Amino acid sequence: MRKTKISHNVILRLPRYLRYLEELRNRGVVRTSSGELGRLMGVTPSQIRQDLSCYGEFGQQGYGYNVEMLMNAISDILGTTRERKAVIIGAGNLGRAIIGKFPFEQYGFRLTGAYDLADSIIGTEIADLTVRHIDRLEEDIRETRTEVAVLTMSSASANAIAGRLIDAGVRGIWNFTNVDLTISSPSVVVENLHFSDSLLTLSYYMTHGKSGEQRTDD
Amino acid sequence: MRKTKISHNVILRLPRYLRYLEELRNRGVVRTSSGELGRLMGVTPSQIRQDLSCYGEFGQQGYGYNVEMLMNAISDILGTTRERKAVIIGAGNLGRAIIGKFPFEQYGFRLTGAYDLADSIIGTEIADLTVRHIDRLEEDIRETRTEVAVLTMSSASANAIAGRLIDAGVRGIWNFTNVDLTISSPSVVVENLHFSDSLLTLSYYMTHGKSGEQRTDD
Repeated sequence: MRKTKISHNVILRLPRYLRYLEELRNRGVVRTSSGELGRLMGVTPSQIRQDLSCYGEFGQQGYGYNVEMLMNAISDILGTTRERKAVIIGAGNLGRAIIGKFPFEQYGFRLTGAYDLADSIIGTEIADLTVRHIDRLEEDIRETRTEVAVLTMSSASANAIAGRLIDAGVRGIWNFTNVDLTISSPSVVVENLHFSDSLLTLSYYMTHGKSGEQRTDD
Repeated sequence: MRKTKISHNVILRLPRYLRYLEELRNRGVVRTSSGELGRLMGVTPSQIRQDLSCYGEFGQQGYGYNVEMLMNAISDILGTTRERKAVIIGAGNLGRAIIGKFPFEQYGFRLTGAYDLADSIIGTEIADLTVRHIDRLEEDIRETRTEVAVLTMSSASANAIAGRLIDAGVRGIWNFTNVDLTISSPSVVVENLHFSDSLLTLSYYMTHGKSGEQRTDD
């Protein structure tokens, strides 16, 4: 893999490629081209070729791409082929929705624990997990060598909890709270899902129109 | 407002500016600068000046920005100063989390209805909404002139429901299902919150490292 800096926008498109390739595979399609994939996804064929070329050669002139092979390659680039353990903090409605419905395994993650503060929730079962008291967090993380945490509790305690998680060895945080975390450790990766940013983007485009143009990502 | 095409990445940063300005205001800060805002947000002052210049002149040489005025200006650009009615389809755990916790009003939205298919859910109350049968959807939307729909039901029915919503007059869809909707009407705005894309981005950066560099967005 090349060591040149790859743009964040290229990285953001990789999961989309994977999603569309999966759809093709599920429809029984064995091979595809940057033209076909581009039409499906609403991007130009040259963008697809350029994005993939950051990581190597996956297609063949005159043949195109083998769907299954390209899927495997992108999965590998995205790191889903190694298993990562994850805990989830906050077992309210949002936490329960994610524990119950989100297919972590499909993306290489395995939920090992769910935590909350509320007596009414602790001890209840969601999917195969029993919700534990948040005071067990550090011990459990160290014991299971868990490296990922999903934050679905209230924003107020987000930074305090994030600090505890990192001290216990967590290296990646999937943050559903509406605050940007203040993380001092440069090796910790934070991925934010700020619902409000998304709704405001919808509001913007509803206000100003889409101008009938394709959105450009770079 | 200029009519030149504004990059999607600039638009994506506006909600973040708003979030940080709000934090400053809540701390009692009256005026700020692109330097201070940049340090807080981890972007360069020139990026902030450049982004804002797409929409007009908001700062003054030697003074900087008035926090409250800049907040109001950005809110106005984002379209949150007009009220939009919204319905939510799917009152399972995710729907309940969003209805119960998400501050729609703060962003100019007002939830007017929640819909589901399950008998066990229909008739229950969440916050101030009574969940109604999804067959009432079209009539209610037309009657209340609702223009936004939040999709929190299962992916399987997403495209069918989206079609019904648009026929009934919906112009904006906030899509939490994991499918990209096939929308034929070019004036309808869709904003996707694909949880899996976000988790895969976390996985990518945990696999390849952040290289100790600031992420660049363009």
